[in-house]
Amino acid sequence: MNIALVGVGKIAKSQHVPNISMSDAWNLVATVALEGTVEGVDSYTDFDQFLLERKDVEVVSFCVPAIARFEYAVKALKAGLHVMLEKPPGATISEINHLQKLAEACDRTLFTTWHSQMAPGVSPAKEWLADKVIEEATVTWHEDIRQFHVNNAGDDRDRGGHRGVRNQDWIFEPGGIGVFDTGINAISILTEIIPHPLRVTEASLVYPENRGQPIQAELIFDSVVRASFNFRHEGKPIWDMHIVTDQGELRLERSATILRIDGVRYELGPSQEYARLYSRMSELILSGESEVNVDPLIVVADIFMIGTRHGSVPFNF
Amino acid sequence: MNIALVGVGKIAKSQHVPNISMSDAWNLVATVALEGTVEGVDSYTDFDQFLLERKDVEVVSFCVPAIARFEYAVKALKAGLHVMLEKPPGATISEINHLQKLAEACDRTLFTTWHSQMAPGVSPAKEWLADKVIEEATVTWHEDIRQFHVNNAGDDRDRGGHRGVRNQDWIFEPGGIGVFDTGINAISILTEIIPHPLRVTEASLVYPENRGQPIQAELIFDSVVRASFNFRHEGKPIWDMHIVTDQGELRLERSATILRIDGVRYELGPSQEYARLYSRMSELILSGESEVNVDPLIVVADIFMIGTRHGSVPFNF
Repeated sequence: MNIALVGVGKIAKSQHVPNISMSDAWNLVATVALEGTVEGVDSYTDFDQFLLERKDVEVVSFCVPAIARFEYAVKALKAGLHVMLEKPPGATISEINHLQKLAEACDRTLFTTWHSQMAPGVSPAKEWLADKVIEEATVTWHEDIRQFHVNNAGDDRDRGGHRGVRNQDWIFEPGGIGVFDTGINAISILTEIIPHPLRVTEASLVYPENRGQPIQAELIFDSVVRASFNFRHEGKPIWDMHIVTDQGELRLERSATILRIDGVRYELGPSQEYARLYSRMSELILSGESEVNVDPLIVVADIFMIGTRHGSVPFNF
Repeated sequence: MNIALVGVGKIAKSQHVPNISMSDAWNLVATVALEGTVEGVDSYTDFDQFLLERKDVEVVSFCVPAIARFEYAVKALKAGLHVMLEKPPGATISEINHLQKLAEACDRTLFTTWHSQMAPGVSPAKEWLADKVIEEATVTWHEDIRQFHVNNAGDDRDRGGHRGVRNQDWIFEPGGIGVFDTGINAISILTEIIPHPLRVTEASLVYPENRGQPIQAELIFDSVVRASFNFRHEGKPIWDMHIVTDQGELRLERSATILRIDGVRYELGPSQEYARLYSRMSELILSGESEVNVDPLIVVADIFMIGTRHGSVPFNF
């Protein structure tokens, strides 16, 4: 199938483009981005012009920041295209509810992707936890924002699409969700593997005094799961979970690419998160279905709604 | 059916008790509250003791602040009781998703009530708007917080249940949602009458410097609906909506108790919001159904997630 990428930023170049290229199922025939192009692929800067000129495209995959994609996704569905959304799928839950209804009405596939749910440890962890009671859990998602969200020339995510901001400043703008841009990966794993709805009961959010979105969050879910998200970490990232149940304990390390149960490391296949997302998209289109999951975004919205806010020293890239 | 009230505060006394008493379908046989009782009705201060001793009760209606009710609602459903929730139904969306699944598993009725949706102007407004395109709308929900949320002796909502705070300080505590405690009434009307999902696109939230929840909010939905919520209003409350469509204009005034279409006032029946809620609860139980609507809470959570925050002078009751 012919596919176009909307947004040619960091994640598009490091994940979407190579995984589309490696697959026999897809031809990357166009990109739409204010800045950034892919060698040998037609590029557009105007979405309406792209829709008008490229009737050969069947699917669009959105990698622009969440705040900048809703209107384009609406246009794409109405033009008869299938739509795939990089996480988080939207700036608001309502947006996704709206797109879901529209996709149904247009009889098109909508796929809200959560790449971390495709990590190789997720599905065995889910299976193992299904019949257990969680007694205590700690989740640590600490990374250096300067390592993964630095200023790259021609990176659309860096420029925030239409907003003209530099670096990944969009992370600290409305809809950017701050530290939850990475923390939502942990949340997407938790909502997938924990056998009941994940309910935040306490949330402490730390805002740099010069920024409108949190840079750190300390969270408690259902009084037993404690999560710590921090963008001000130095050194290698820590993306780990430790879950103690009534029948043993489980560890997911390095964003669910390593799984240990009661101390024994499980043999997992290689990490192929984006390859699996694109493969799933093919399946969904062929079976005429959508896959819309807003659970992780609901958890983040709940956190913003009940969270207490604390000030902190300014942050600059 | 025998019913118990959990929380005997301002809204319980002014609305729940008289409307239960007026109906032939209900017997108010118990209250559960830290403070506050209803004359002639058995009162409990401990929920577990209430459950243990009052096997004659079939339904509980919760009027305590949202943050304080989840665990009790879980216990009630597990004990085989039907559950009715005053708005907002919970402190988080996840909470309600959890309760919905639990109610299904326990084969009990769960009813998330939105009293403003029962105002007499709502259903004719919904019908009239169904085939129209909204071009512009303004929503004004301004009231004096001291008028409707003052300190009443023995008011459980005033005391925040277990929190021991005075006045309705719980409104400015986590889960209290500040001005949205009243603004969510407007939102619940909008989500009901507008023929597509209501999507917030811009939100400006004003926080008193000594409070953790907003006292004022200026909102834009789908770029065409503008809403202004303010707790710092003086004088009579204003609870009005003005909606301009491609085929005429509609006004809902005084919280949807007055309806004007193209300037002509419609004859509406009397306002019987709570009587209709309790009548609906009877119907739901008799037909073995639940009615769970989290749309207004999703909109509020979205607003907290994308809203920009502005400081303001301190507020004290």
